[in-house]
Amino acid sequence: MHQAVIDLLSGAEGAALNIPAIAQRAEVNHTSVYRRWGSLDALVADTVTTRLERDSPLIDTGSLRGDLLAWAEAGVASNRTPEGLALVRAVAMSMPISGRARAERSQHFQRRMHSIERIRERAVTRGENPPPLEQIFDLLIAPFYVRALFGIDLPATGYPRLLVDRLLGEGTTPDTT
Amino acid sequence: MHQAVIDLLSGAEGAALNIPAIAQRAEVNHTSVYRRWGSLDALVADTVTTRLERDSPLIDTGSLRGDLLAWAEAGVASNRTPEGLALVRAVAMSMPISGRARAERSQHFQRRMHSIERIRERAVTRGENPPPLEQIFDLLIAPFYVRALFGIDLPATGYPRLLVDRLLGEGTTPDTT
Repeated sequence: MHQAVIDLLSGAEGAALNIPAIAQRAEVNHTSVYRRWGSLDALVADTVTTRLERDSPLIDTGSLRGDLLAWAEAGVASNRTPEGLALVRAVAMSMPISGRARAERSQHFQRRMHSIERIRERAVTRGENPPPLEQIFDLLIAPFYVRALFGIDLPATGYPRLLVDRLLGEGTTPDTT
Repeated sequence: MHQAVIDLLSGAEGAALNIPAIAQRAEVNHTSVYRRWGSLDALVADTVTTRLERDSPLIDTGSLRGDLLAWAEAGVASNRTPEGLALVRAVAMSMPISGRARAERSQHFQRRMHSIERIRERAVTRGENPPPLEQIFDLLIAPFYVRALFGIDLPATGYPRLLVDRLLGEGTTPDTT
């Protein structure tokens, strides 16, 4: 079912994303889709969350720097695929424009940031001093997500490393790990 | 016509955005809309570009720092409105997922970055040394755009200033301009 959602999201422009179309593609009866997920939004949200967790395993590399780099590299690689990009767009588009519904829905994206919270906690346990979440969001996450959404090229193959270096204030120190 | 597009984009979730609906709202004949713009994509792109240019007047404040701050404050304020946010989303959504069409379409967003190019050129003329466009994109633009798209709160009222300070490497210097 998740794959059917992703196929439709990342398919030709203008492909209709609706429960009957998803059910047809997944070869199940659409009434059972409604029974399990209740709404298209809930199904999309479930798909996105499941896929993001699968694409972002939290490998403990032994250092904050290594963990952030592994996370960013996985995220950049995921956003480069039509499927991954379709999911990111689905999250952005499922966000109501305003009001209380918007605040509630932003939790979907924040689910992804929970990985970052776990990376931060692990660093604290090691005795490292991780940057605040807000800084990680601005300096590490925002640049590659907004480039994916607006179709702006990533500057270079070492881009995740550049972002991590900038975040950790190590921009001038070459790193050979 | 532009206002009709914006009204529909920022209206209730799921409102249909199509040329007949836009024409009806603007109280014109839909055949004249097709004649002038040719396609829905072209009309949305034209609306977005026109509105962004209007919302981002390039005031010459006399310094690179002042110009960037004015630009970022206008952008943050615009993204806080349902109309402004709807336009940003429309740009992201009109971007094909992959292929040559994606590369071509990314020009729409880059139109907005031309303002930044003009700010940079003005700084060079004054004898200032502006950061590269890539850095401005990552450190100033990406954080507030991605927050708008994913419904993540901005950290504080002085957020545009924080971003400009960070970009210009003045994070530790209080500024009272």
